[in-house]
Amino acid sequence: MPGSGKTLVAKTFRAEGFYVISMGDILRQDFEKNKMPNESLMEYAIRIRKEKGDEIIAKLTSIEIEKVNQMKVLIDGVRSMKEVNVFQQAGSVEIIAVHSPPRLRYQRILQRAREDDTLSEIWLRERDLAELSLGIGEVIALADYMILNDSDMETLKQNVLRLVMALKSD
Amino acid sequence: MPGSGKTLVAKTFRAEGFYVISMGDILRQDFEKNKMPNESLMEYAIRIRKEKGDEIIAKLTSIEIEKVNQMKVLIDGVRSMKEVNVFQQAGSVEIIAVHSPPRLRYQRILQRAREDDTLSEIWLRERDLAELSLGIGEVIALADYMILNDSDMETLKQNVLRLVMALKSD
Repeated sequence: MPGSGKTLVAKTFRAEGFYVISMGDILRQDFEKNKMPNESLMEYAIRIRKEKGDEIIAKLTSIEIEKVNQMKVLIDGVRSMKEVNVFQQAGSVEIIAVHSPPRLRYQRILQRAREDDTLSEIWLRERDLAELSLGIGEVIALADYMILNDSDMETLKQNVLRLVMALKSD
Repeated sequence: MPGSGKTLVAKTFRAEGFYVISMGDILRQDFEKNKMPNESLMEYAIRIRKEKGDEIIAKLTSIEIEKVNQMKVLIDGVRSMKEVNVFQQAGSVEIIAVHSPPRLRYQRILQRAREDDTLSEIWLRERDLAELSLGIGEVIALADYMILNDSDMETLKQNVLRLVMALKSD
């Protein structure tokens, strides 16, 4: 979910030698190549899902996974079990979720974007519900690993490092 | 989710003096009063949801909450944000989720029901997806407190007791 600390988790994995693929980056690359005049990234994301199916970003990511030829890859940005199913066709999948209480997530987002007056807790709640309508709640509920990010950054980093070590020795 | 340790969490809250209302019990009481001949509990649950709306069990639970006249009540068995919204009309709500990795949940359920040959991991996965279709993933994703139950019972109990103390002093 937005503001959960997912990006910091992905960064820590990368720093520890994991190959990380961001589904957001894959979408942006595809957008730069194929966008229509004046189309926004969000509009593009909705259009290609409509035209090519809900799994399109996962399918593009799968092509990237095959290219990089790594034993283990961390995929950042899964939004639904449909996407997880696409990755399961490429190999064994383990889901890592990062959880923060909504109150904390909203605080972090509002602090990061202090100059943006349009942001409010009500708007953030609505964005949460939009994310959830894609099915991300099901992915979180079925996570193989749950990283809690409800205190400080140092604790989060320690939790992530512990998981990285466990997964490396797997 | 089934096998997550939710019942043990509710028991610990009860032992610590919290008033606990089980939505499963509320459904069963309503079933005993109003069931049709030969109707099973599951059939009844589906029928009253169809006849009276998805929030019916939450509404019956709300009536019970008003009766008991307690400052704080733990409600066991919420399945969707629609139900959470019903409770929000009665007072301030904080969501507590209990998470265990699916692998562990399935192990626990299969150990508990050793004599039942019809249970399998595939069947349990399907039951998970049925639960998720009610919207429980959204509730978990928006939890204010996430209790991890991925090691032993003693650790779980310690985690729950820490939360009980925090909520009591709230």
